[in-house]
Amino acid sequence: MERMRDTTAITEGRAERLTKHGLFETPRFFADVYVLRPGQAQAVHTHEGEDKCYFVLSGRGQITSGTVVHDAGPGALVFCPAGEDHGVVNAALDEDLRLLVYMAPHPRLS
Amino acid sequence: MERMRDTTAITEGRAERLTKHGLFETPRFFADVYVLRPGQAQAVHTHEGEDKCYFVLSGRGQITSGTVVHDAGPGALVFCPAGEDHGVVNAALDEDLRLLVYMAPHPRLS
Repeated sequence: MERMRDTTAITEGRAERLTKHGLFETPRFFADVYVLRPGQAQAVHTHEGEDKCYFVLSGRGQITSGTVVHDAGPGALVFCPAGEDHGVVNAALDEDLRLLVYMAPHPRLS
Repeated sequence: MERMRDTTAITEGRAERLTKHGLFETPRFFADVYVLRPGQAQAVHTHEGEDKCYFVLSGRGQITSGTVVHDAGPGALVFCPAGEDHGVVNAALDEDLRLLVYMAPHPRLS
């Protein structure tokens, strides 16, 4: 398996809904890049046993963690602990939101 | 606990050795920012039960994963699986290397 991925080259989105690009996964974690076109969202949801982090690669996101919505720009890291609500919206009119998403442990492989 | 951290503001390094800035930790994972001044390194080492990922925020690193050394620039994500050698060198003469580092599970809290 390849050990290095260049996230700057991962930009492809779709018109229908947010796009998840898988980078690495083991039973202990996964790392994905999500691309949200303007207006797209990941609905607020909860994982009972997994922690998630959203890192903003480019664009701006409104990221829910628990009861707070964070306005997150490039370089922001938002922590969403197991058992709490989280989700993200790209409210921009003209810019994609690209996120590096990290979850531990892996929800299906662990 | 604060749920959002701005990694662009985390730049402080030290002359003696690489600096680790802790962002978030649970038994399932930790997220740190490492700052390596020119010439600094994290020596090659192995964790038997934890996966690590290095994400390059700024600068350039020579990142070992297993038997391969990757030349990694901004936006690169390098996966270092449990049980294999890994480490990083900032060989630049004049630029800090800033990394977002994930490990799962947490080596001390899990």
